[in-house]
Amino acid sequence: MLISSLLIGCNNDAKEEGTAQDSTPPATAQQPINASDPLPSWADGKIKDSIINFVKLVTKEGPSFVKEEDRITVFDNDGTLWVEQPMYSQVVFAINKVALDHPEWKNKEPFKSLLAGNMEVLDKGGELAVMELIMDTHAGMNTEEFEQEVLAWVAKAKHPRFNKPYTECVYQPMLELMTYLRANGFKTFIASGGGIEFMRPWTQRVYGVSPEQVIGSSIKAKYQVKDGKPELFRQRKIDFIDDKAGKPEGIHSHIGKRPIAAFGNSDGDFQMLEWTTKGKGPTLGLIVHHDDAEREWAYDRKSPVGKLDQALDAAPKNGWLVVSMKENWKKIFSWDK
Amino acid sequence: MLISSLLIGCNNDAKEEGTAQDSTPPATAQQPINASDPLPSWADGKIKDSIINFVKLVTKEGPSFVKEEDRITVFDNDGTLWVEQPMYSQVVFAINKVALDHPEWKNKEPFKSLLAGNMEVLDKGGELAVMELIMDTHAGMNTEEFEQEVLAWVAKAKHPRFNKPYTECVYQPMLELMTYLRANGFKTFIASGGGIEFMRPWTQRVYGVSPEQVIGSSIKAKYQVKDGKPELFRQRKIDFIDDKAGKPEGIHSHIGKRPIAAFGNSDGDFQMLEWTTKGKGPTLGLIVHHDDAEREWAYDRKSPVGKLDQALDAAPKNGWLVVSMKENWKKIFSWDK
Repeated sequence: MLISSLLIGCNNDAKEEGTAQDSTPPATAQQPINASDPLPSWADGKIKDSIINFVKLVTKEGPSFVKEEDRITVFDNDGTLWVEQPMYSQVVFAINKVALDHPEWKNKEPFKSLLAGNMEVLDKGGELAVMELIMDTHAGMNTEEFEQEVLAWVAKAKHPRFNKPYTECVYQPMLELMTYLRANGFKTFIASGGGIEFMRPWTQRVYGVSPEQVIGSSIKAKYQVKDGKPELFRQRKIDFIDDKAGKPEGIHSHIGKRPIAAFGNSDGDFQMLEWTTKGKGPTLGLIVHHDDAEREWAYDRKSPVGKLDQALDAAPKNGWLVVSMKENWKKIFSWDK
Repeated sequence: MLISSLLIGCNNDAKEEGTAQDSTPPATAQQPINASDPLPSWADGKIKDSIINFVKLVTKEGPSFVKEEDRITVFDNDGTLWVEQPMYSQVVFAINKVALDHPEWKNKEPFKSLLAGNMEVLDKGGELAVMELIMDTHAGMNTEEFEQEVLAWVAKAKHPRFNKPYTECVYQPMLELMTYLRANGFKTFIASGGGIEFMRPWTQRVYGVSPEQVIGSSIKAKYQVKDGKPELFRQRKIDFIDDKAGKPEGIHSHIGKRPIAAFGNSDGDFQMLEWTTKGKGPTLGLIVHHDDAEREWAYDRKSPVGKLDQALDAAPKNGWLVVSMKENWKKIFSWDK
């Protein structure tokens, strides 16, 4: 992983420009629906038909009708709604934050190696090292301060390959799908392994998903009153990991209902897809398969980021749609010709 | 506490009548708004004016305007939306469940004493004994089975004093207030010390609050696949206690936004009120004060159920409205003349 390029790709001077605002006007999240083709970036064929038929089936009066309040859908984020290669953006955020906030950590591992562009330390330490990095950089401030940091980063950081803000490196077909579902009375939730507080500041603008419809991993935030001012202070303690079996658990805890459609791209989404599609009545499970190295990336069974192996094998027998980004998506990003 | 009467008040044969349905038509939750008086059960005066003025202030264009998406309100449940005397209904549910499901526990404490109507065992053991009772009766089944048990109980159990279903022992003025707020673009969340899964099965029908807008205490539910069927199996492990400082923590975790109005009745709501009313811009904090022994109950500083002491002292200096049920509510229940 050439993570060193990410640091170069990121403009690090966000902090110097005052309080960040996520005031950019809504992108495609609120786009109007084209009645004759609600999913214009999806190629015609079985996948697109299956999605549209599912929506028609559950919204039309009849034995398969589902009331609006029960039209719950859940979307993974990294690799399903936005780019996760060459590294999850939250890890890039964390690395950038070390460089910005903690020059005194320069000689402390794993930061020393990370700042030197030597990402093997993450590979070797695996998930634990990433978790340590996340906690070291995400704790020790209140929730409002953290929100400002995220907004500042999102406003300035650019994806190293596409040279665009990360919030523009989102999949146009998935934005269309979310808009189409909402126009048909569905609720669109995000259920991501990523940090809930890393997503909430910008999901309304980018995806049209409000903060209370975001489910993710979290560290504990402790209520306290400091100088007469109450705050939620972020602790260096894991609260919840919203991945694998954690996804249906987190979905249940937040929503209290079983979704009828789930969208993912990796083995981390397996249980969410399983829980959703083994429910009663019509359900929809969909996997975004990254097979387009030219326009995006091609990876699955062997990738340390967004590994798709078990879920790919399970897809045919569970009736999960496997979307080929290359074949089924006419556009990947809004800026694609 | 004369809890033994609760067992007599409850019809215990729910289980024998098949799968429970929460199919009773919506009560007052969906009632239309009376434009000339949106809060007909509230007596004219300062309290009612303050509520209406707050709603007008934040919904009218101007410096105090709040966007719909930020009109977040939080309501405690026990003692704020429904009766909590002579004992929290969830504890009654638990005691009933012991009698129904576990005849073999007859000789095990604390059930032995509870079933004998000797509630001192709870008083003596305090919160811990209640917690043990709750966990013993709420774990060991999957979430769907538990939901059916709650619905069966709610359909059959009756309040010992009013001889009505618990879900009818709800405060008519608070139902009007929730309806009024929603009609003005507010979102109404419940933030209760009670069990999240004990409330979710019926809050939509009774309060017009959907399951994803319910925040409460919880035990862990573990995702597992049993005989090819995925389920969330309820563990005998506390996940979260949504009381006192836990309320702002739970609100933040579920909603990701700071509320602008909070409604409570006990010291368990203190931090929720504090967190809400010390936010930016106009805010509203309100305490329901139980001072009407004739129509309901009169209790505050010394009551083991719904103790209101610290929050009552803090109300004047924080500008929290203290509602006298006796003076400010023309009706308490829908059936009051």
